[in-house]
Amino acid sequence: MKCIIASTSTIYGSGYLAYLLDEINIFFNKPKEVLFIPYARPGGISHDTYTQKAQDAFEKIGTKVKGIHTYDSPEKAIQEAKFIFTGGGNTFLLVKKLHELGLMLPLKKAVTNGTFYLGTSAGSNICGPTIMTTNDMPIVYPPSFNSLGILNFNINPHYLDPLPNSTHKGETRETRIKEFLQQNKVSVLGLREGSWIAVNGQEIYLRGELSARVFKAASSPYELSTNTSLIGL
Amino acid sequence: MKCIIASTSTIYGSGYLAYLLDEINIFFNKPKEVLFIPYARPGGISHDTYTQKAQDAFEKIGTKVKGIHTYDSPEKAIQEAKFIFTGGGNTFLLVKKLHELGLMLPLKKAVTNGTFYLGTSAGSNICGPTIMTTNDMPIVYPPSFNSLGILNFNINPHYLDPLPNSTHKGETRETRIKEFLQQNKVSVLGLREGSWIAVNGQEIYLRGELSARVFKAASSPYELSTNTSLIGL
Repeated sequence: MKCIIASTSTIYGSGYLAYLLDEINIFFNKPKEVLFIPYARPGGISHDTYTQKAQDAFEKIGTKVKGIHTYDSPEKAIQEAKFIFTGGGNTFLLVKKLHELGLMLPLKKAVTNGTFYLGTSAGSNICGPTIMTTNDMPIVYPPSFNSLGILNFNINPHYLDPLPNSTHKGETRETRIKEFLQQNKVSVLGLREGSWIAVNGQEIYLRGELSARVFKAASSPYELSTNTSLIGL
Repeated sequence: MKCIIASTSTIYGSGYLAYLLDEINIFFNKPKEVLFIPYARPGGISHDTYTQKAQDAFEKIGTKVKGIHTYDSPEKAIQEAKFIFTGGGNTFLLVKKLHELGLMLPLKKAVTNGTFYLGTSAGSNICGPTIMTTNDMPIVYPPSFNSLGILNFNINPHYLDPLPNSTHKGETRETRIKEFLQQNKVSVLGLREGSWIAVNGQEIYLRGELSARVFKAASSPYELSTNTSLIGL
């Protein structure tokens, strides 16, 4: 496998994918073309508009973007792609569409067989066994919360630390993830904005400048330094 | 119907239900006993612990609390109760349990036939047609996102305004609700902490000190003053 699984597409004060483009270009060895999966539709934008947004970013490194929605057979598009990018937005929308079109298994097969994969936010969320640690609103009912499972732990993207002086009584992210661990055995990696997971063959590393927060059933959460292996999480 | 549907059980700096107890006592005419539904299990606490927490609050107004989990037939408990309280926690857990035990319809019937109802947070979320505007993490997969539908609009509890100077790139609450409205026709009431909806027969009013934010498909969100009728939302 060769994947970049990123917390977010965009960090504060810079353009779409800007902080990751050089890394993408090097890691995936100057990719000529990428198959874009726009189903998560951030803010409800159309597949075409979203694909254009990806194209505007990728053209800076000379990579052509083709939206999966423009193919007669999205399954065949996945099977034939050398490089696939799933963008962020609403994870429920994304997963519902992938299940309904029967693309979850073909996508998993492609990635585990070596097709390069880039995910951001919702596109990273689906790399875990389930989407049960998404932050998104359940705006549609998917036939299942199961996802790719190319990682054996779940991702919580855009991970936010509890605000020490907050007066808000809604649950913190940490509380929510602990509730998840009451119901599930899967570990969770809280991936802060600007962090990503680099999968290269058998190696899995945390990358970016920040540490990540690890949540496991029946133990206290802890910090994991950047450039640490994620094997065994 | 006679209901208090509150954004939160607890406001900053005060105890569980403290800000609402006097209102509950007056509105429901000094209730002697309340049937408590603890299935949302905030922070994963047990049904017993959660019921004790409710009891500790309600004893200040002389109301006895009985947990629905202590009855052989929870359906019969609902049918025989004069006053039902569903506490907050994780909405997915709550709804999964209500569906699995076949309690959604009996609860709807009871409330529409006049059984007093108090909901906070997740217990308020289920008063709309669906739970699709919950803030909670989907830690379990419920058989449906449909809920009581005793209101004809959805609730977003713990509503938070966008932070003007935030550097976080995760979606704001407003963005999430707009994504919901791209996929659904149901209006959404963003209910700030300390606000509640009072249903009394045919009347439905926003109560508390704050305004609420209304989101409708194909129009801009707007503020609704407190003590305004919610009929026709």
